[in-house]
Amino acid sequence: MSAIDIEISEVGPRDGLQSISAIMPTAAKKAWITALAGAGIPEIEVGSFVPAKILPQLADTAELVSHARQIPGLTVAVLVPNLRGARDALAVGPHKMTIPLSVSETHSLKNLRRTHAQVLEEIAAIRGEIDALPAANRPKLEGSLSTAFGCTLEGVVPERKVLEMAEKLVAAGCDEVGLSDTTGFANPVQVRKYTREIWQLLGRDKLTGIHLHNTRGQGLANVMAALEVGLTTIDASMGGIGGCPFAPGASGNIVTEDLVFLLESQGLRTGVNFQRLFEARRVLAEALPTTELYGFTPLAGLPKDFVAATPQ
Amino acid sequence: MSAIDIEISEVGPRDGLQSISAIMPTAAKKAWITALAGAGIPEIEVGSFVPAKILPQLADTAELVSHARQIPGLTVAVLVPNLRGARDALAVGPHKMTIPLSVSETHSLKNLRRTHAQVLEEIAAIRGEIDALPAANRPKLEGSLSTAFGCTLEGVVPERKVLEMAEKLVAAGCDEVGLSDTTGFANPVQVRKYTREIWQLLGRDKLTGIHLHNTRGQGLANVMAALEVGLTTIDASMGGIGGCPFAPGASGNIVTEDLVFLLESQGLRTGVNFQRLFEARRVLAEALPTTELYGFTPLAGLPKDFVAATPQ
Repeated sequence: MSAIDIEISEVGPRDGLQSISAIMPTAAKKAWITALAGAGIPEIEVGSFVPAKILPQLADTAELVSHARQIPGLTVAVLVPNLRGARDALAVGPHKMTIPLSVSETHSLKNLRRTHAQVLEEIAAIRGEIDALPAANRPKLEGSLSTAFGCTLEGVVPERKVLEMAEKLVAAGCDEVGLSDTTGFANPVQVRKYTREIWQLLGRDKLTGIHLHNTRGQGLANVMAALEVGLTTIDASMGGIGGCPFAPGASGNIVTEDLVFLLESQGLRTGVNFQRLFEARRVLAEALPTTELYGFTPLAGLPKDFVAATPQ
Repeated sequence: MSAIDIEISEVGPRDGLQSISAIMPTAAKKAWITALAGAGIPEIEVGSFVPAKILPQLADTAELVSHARQIPGLTVAVLVPNLRGARDALAVGPHKMTIPLSVSETHSLKNLRRTHAQVLEEIAAIRGEIDALPAANRPKLEGSLSTAFGCTLEGVVPERKVLEMAEKLVAAGCDEVGLSDTTGFANPVQVRKYTREIWQLLGRDKLTGIHLHNTRGQGLANVMAALEVGLTTIDASMGGIGGCPFAPGASGNIVTEDLVFLLESQGLRTGVNFQRLFEARRVLAEALPTTELYGFTPLAGLPKDFVAATPQ
């Protein structure tokens, strides 16, 4: 495997599928995850440990973790909403667990029915469970700063609140925090500023990744800011599935395929093979025949005589 | 009118409408142009002086120039393919004329049926016609470097060819050159590099603008590179009309509405009022009821409590 400059974390199997009412069969999910990893995607968030009652689409997450863990070299990530979810996750051993904390407390109360203090308490408890495991079995715990760039309920989310929550997430036991533009409010100035300020506060190793939405078409422009400042992990979703499509072409998540092209065209290695990536897209399209997939590069094709940074 | 940091040049009435087979009635075009200018768009390319046989959609360009010239403060631009078109343009007096030269000579021969030498000769002749006018009546002449970032026929277009053509355009009499990603091949590294090299060769005043397509979803990422390097005029098309849509959401031109949001959210003043811009979009939508409009911001709406850089 070639060296990687920017790591793409594919969140389609979690963030994408949770937004689609159709339930993708487990076998199809496995084939898709295998195809994504085969294309060179280094990290995949395969699901979320939420009650099947709430998100039946993700009820097979445990089985997917077990499947994905057999793929050599792949980092297997999951979302956990709380301690109970984290326990279920730890039972199957993902490499990474992400727990969201909504910087807007209004959003936190409405969506997770929890105050900040309650979320931070759960995180401390999760940290305890992780530390009780043998060192080799401990997954990385990331605290995701949801609504960091603004909130549909609260509007402007004060920057000091983002910094305060970042600090508290690490204090509660997160190995790392992540910036998350849940609402599609982010602009490039914020991306650069918040990243630098969290680095100054907590150290550069405590923030490496960002989760951007494309709600107002600004996804890849914000990626440019993330690259400029020096973030190295970027979440994206194949076909742009997930989030809340308002418009023709409006995807919630930024589109993996277009992100790979943006990076590779600039000489940044993603480790991804385009033809296999487009093949993984076909696997997804066949499994979700009624879901519209977004992304321009797979349909426009690569430019004539295009040379990617990653050896193809 | 407030000061402007970045000037948006709206190319929808030309680049957009030439790609749509339906012919927009002249009255509707006038209403749209008036609405765009009323929203604060400082420059509009209202049409192209091509024979009506080739592009009947733009046959009323002369009338639109006369109409647009009555709007105070608006820069009225047109495209002219050749000397004959330039003469027709000069008869009605636009503020700016853009003539394209395809850096890929294969493309130039195929699309314009002219060699580079022939195009440059016409430009010298146009320069002569302009200089024969009283100084106050001379429009600015811009040479647009089409296929500068790559060509669907030739593939890679050598950088030295871009520089050579930029130099020759100015030598032939262009006041300025513009970089044009006709094919949607451009990447941010190229945008920065080509801009800096043309500046070094010809001086900063000889290149201020860029024309980007969104064929592979990279439009606003390339805008970020243009801003970083210091370009100050950016072409865009309302609703992303124009170009060659390959995919759901694949627009040819970058979308004016999303570009304005990108700039204003970063504190860069465009002079544009969002509500009036969205109103101009409604004027367009009503005039082209069967054409799908792109753009995320008009449908997602502005973020709660959003404060634009331009006083609204």
